[in-house]
Amino acid sequence: MMAYMNDQSYAETLRTGCAVYFSRSRGKLWRKGEESGNVQEVDSIYLDCDRDTILLKVRQIGDAACHRGYRSCFYRRVTPKGLEVVGEQVFDPEEVYKK
Amino acid sequence: MMAYMNDQSYAETLRTGCAVYFSRSRGKLWRKGEESGNVQEVDSIYLDCDRDTILLKVRQIGDAACHRGYRSCFYRRVTPKGLEVVGEQVFDPEEVYKK
Repeated sequence: MMAYMNDQSYAETLRTGCAVYFSRSRGKLWRKGEESGNVQEVDSIYLDCDRDTILLKVRQIGDAACHRGYRSCFYRRVTPKGLEVVGEQVFDPEEVYKK
Repeated sequence: MMAYMNDQSYAETLRTGCAVYFSRSRGKLWRKGEESGNVQEVDSIYLDCDRDTILLKVRQIGDAACHRGYRSCFYRRVTPKGLEVVGEQVFDPEEVYKK
């Protein structure tokens, strides 16, 4: 998955050992898994060459990082015939988020 | 590695089969490997759940994606003592880019 971090979310990630992002649409910290329970326990953190991208290696609780219930947000492959779902759905979003 | 794409770079990636990004600092298309020769032959393309992030799986010619000569741009790990280089340098940037 890909998400945004600001200084505070990075500091909270280091402090708690779990991934904390910053939701730009909601304008606040996003403690990944706060609603679904699918938190991400941080195993290791890497910085890229120009230090503007952070890579987290995590233990994904619940086996799904994506709010749509897939292990990865990148569960659709681009093909000449359009998008093909290649991921396996681990949970039903309607049950987990109870909208 | 992480890089930016615009419509034109995505279209060129599909057309050529090699990764083309858009350099926001230079304001123009960036045909990855145009200077170093380390092009990226695209194996498959994935879109994320909200369709604003693209994942390319590539065959990295020259074995290094990073302009600093590492296989990955994420060659430094964050540790309590600071950044630790964990990647292996595949080429010498000064030789490849001949500054």
